[in-house]
Amino acid sequence: MPFENYSIIESTLREGEQFSTATFSTAQKLEIAGMLDNFGVEMIEMTSPCASPQSEADIRAVTSAGLNARILTHIRCNRDDAARALDTGVHGLDVVIGTSPQLMQHRHGKNIRQIIDIAAEVMTFIRQQQPDIILRFSTEDTFRSKESDLLRVYLAIADLGLVNRLGVADTVGVALPTQVYRMVGQIVRLTGLDIEFHGHNDSGCAIANACAALEAGATHIDTTILGIGERNGITPLGGLVARLYTIDRAYVEKYNLKLLPQLDQLIADTCEIDIPFNNYITGSSAFMHKAGIHAKAVLADPGTYEILKPEDFGLTREIAIGHRLTGWNAIRDRAETLGLALDDDTVRDITRVIKGRADERSLSLDEVDALLLEAAGELKVIE
Amino acid sequence: MPFENYSIIESTLREGEQFSTATFSTAQKLEIAGMLDNFGVEMIEMTSPCASPQSEADIRAVTSAGLNARILTHIRCNRDDAARALDTGVHGLDVVIGTSPQLMQHRHGKNIRQIIDIAAEVMTFIRQQQPDIILRFSTEDTFRSKESDLLRVYLAIADLGLVNRLGVADTVGVALPTQVYRMVGQIVRLTGLDIEFHGHNDSGCAIANACAALEAGATHIDTTILGIGERNGITPLGGLVARLYTIDRAYVEKYNLKLLPQLDQLIADTCEIDIPFNNYITGSSAFMHKAGIHAKAVLADPGTYEILKPEDFGLTREIAIGHRLTGWNAIRDRAETLGLALDDDTVRDITRVIKGRADERSLSLDEVDALLLEAAGELKVIE
Repeated sequence: MPFENYSIIESTLREGEQFSTATFSTAQKLEIAGMLDNFGVEMIEMTSPCASPQSEADIRAVTSAGLNARILTHIRCNRDDAARALDTGVHGLDVVIGTSPQLMQHRHGKNIRQIIDIAAEVMTFIRQQQPDIILRFSTEDTFRSKESDLLRVYLAIADLGLVNRLGVADTVGVALPTQVYRMVGQIVRLTGLDIEFHGHNDSGCAIANACAALEAGATHIDTTILGIGERNGITPLGGLVARLYTIDRAYVEKYNLKLLPQLDQLIADTCEIDIPFNNYITGSSAFMHKAGIHAKAVLADPGTYEILKPEDFGLTREIAIGHRLTGWNAIRDRAETLGLALDDDTVRDITRVIKGRADERSLSLDEVDALLLEAAGELKVIE
Repeated sequence: MPFENYSIIESTLREGEQFSTATFSTAQKLEIAGMLDNFGVEMIEMTSPCASPQSEADIRAVTSAGLNARILTHIRCNRDDAARALDTGVHGLDVVIGTSPQLMQHRHGKNIRQIIDIAAEVMTFIRQQQPDIILRFSTEDTFRSKESDLLRVYLAIADLGLVNRLGVADTVGVALPTQVYRMVGQIVRLTGLDIEFHGHNDSGCAIANACAALEAGATHIDTTILGIGERNGITPLGGLVARLYTIDRAYVEKYNLKLLPQLDQLIADTCEIDIPFNNYITGSSAFMHKAGIHAKAVLADPGTYEILKPEDFGLTREIAIGHRLTGWNAIRDRAETLGLALDDDTVRDITRVIKGRADERSLSLDEVDALLLEAAGELKVIE
């Protein structure tokens, strides 16, 4: 089964650091890594030690923090970066090199033959230095690369017998799920190696693409908390959880789901951003029901309009009732909550009053309650 | 070609009104509809006239505003709602009825045979009253409905020869792109009618599903501005545009793309929400490049890491340079922008200084500039 044996490579401390307002201190990195470890992610990817002195020191700090998660760092495909990364004692190296015409021209100037040669040299060097390190090789901008170029590179690297995992990266957020499915499936068949998918969200398919990768046999998915990363980011941790949960809740039961709201809030606070109103699971509106016909059904059975259970994440649903789209079932439910015995005709009359007034401006719950209490003879409202 | 002949049914004034903080006044509805019309959406869907007195009056106001877009209203599958909607003079009716076990039990209590009967009665009534009205019939919660139930309903309605369009709705946000592709493709083959897709985003596939629907032959996609709607909403207008643009810019050239930032801001202001930091195209970080290796490549050719051109939407890219992930190419570019002639060694030295300082806290552009000006002998900085 495609979704039963996957791992999350949580890259908030690497891809996430490339988000415009993200600059994590050592203490913040340790806090984020610790909470991700409690959540249960299998791997945590950190910024290259070559980025800055503190980046290097932070890898050492997080790697020696005694977490269950394996700590990885993400480096360019060259011997110097590899040597510096190996020196930190990190558990794994994620090596990347661009293979699209755009990146071959403007990132490193190498052709495919040269890419294969340098990759072989760097992989051999790393494996010689540390026979047990977790080693990944990834192309960058996979979905704008020539398919024949990709296969030459992946087959050459697989033939070395040195890497644990191959990476497929939708670096500019252009891939469609069908393309991801085809590409990942092909590499799985041809190499038999573990496959990692990294997907940006510029065109809104980062979650669907991660899911398609798993369906095709990928074993590892990159995420960041709230999806932060370069530009508008990558597959969000909470969004991936929501997607897999709705396929089968069993696929995410290995994680401590109730920590998700805390994780999202921690990154929002640290990066001084708001959790988007429409964020998966933790957005302000994720479990808000408004239209009367929805409210009626949700009151009878939340499963009618909820595919995720808020309580699984330590959250609660909310039913908005003081607006023009409200319905009498929701108003009756509110009356019952208040312990008022109102007949159906009275509730229908009050619903009409609410709808009429709400055409001007939505009513607060107190205002709705006042109407109900007044009708039950328990409150005199002065108009 | 699947993407060359589609229409947008813009439902901000219906689905969008079901978003928690959305209550649009008549003036706001006219402003939103007018801007959507200028953008070029083909159809605008409005809240049922049965929701409230103002809802009914607003349909009349928008329908008589002389827009190019056709105005639709969304009603339950019953004769009373249809009669009231017909009376408004609206251009089209979108009729919906739930077909999943959950909704049959808790929404209307009808079985499939009864659904077919009432749908046939209502469709016949509407077509008799107004032979030229645009008429759509949709199931609700399509992707939790039994496939055999769906086909019985769709085939029965298609056989009537009365409707222009059939609707497929992922009401709870549970569908996968492959499921949407299969279902839409099947209905296209079996009925030959226009097909509309409406997709919620609870599990992050609303954009991918809309795209899969088009690939399978759907003709109409429902959107709302910023994706607002029940819970965390549906396919966002800007997200759909981003998706189709990245497949081929020609697919969205019929729209006035430069209005997109204004549309998103209008809804954010009206609903008192922030545009999410990671929103498609108009989010604060959509065209922000940070890592040094990205900045270097984008300075050489924006297409290296940008699949959407910000200028097509009246926006500009931004390259952040005062942080620990910065690179010397970006710093050199900044020196050139300032008209400073610094040799490469000097720029590399300054880059190292910036990275070191930014490990404490990111530098402002003024602070970066001061370092460059100081190195060029044009400014003395007091430490």
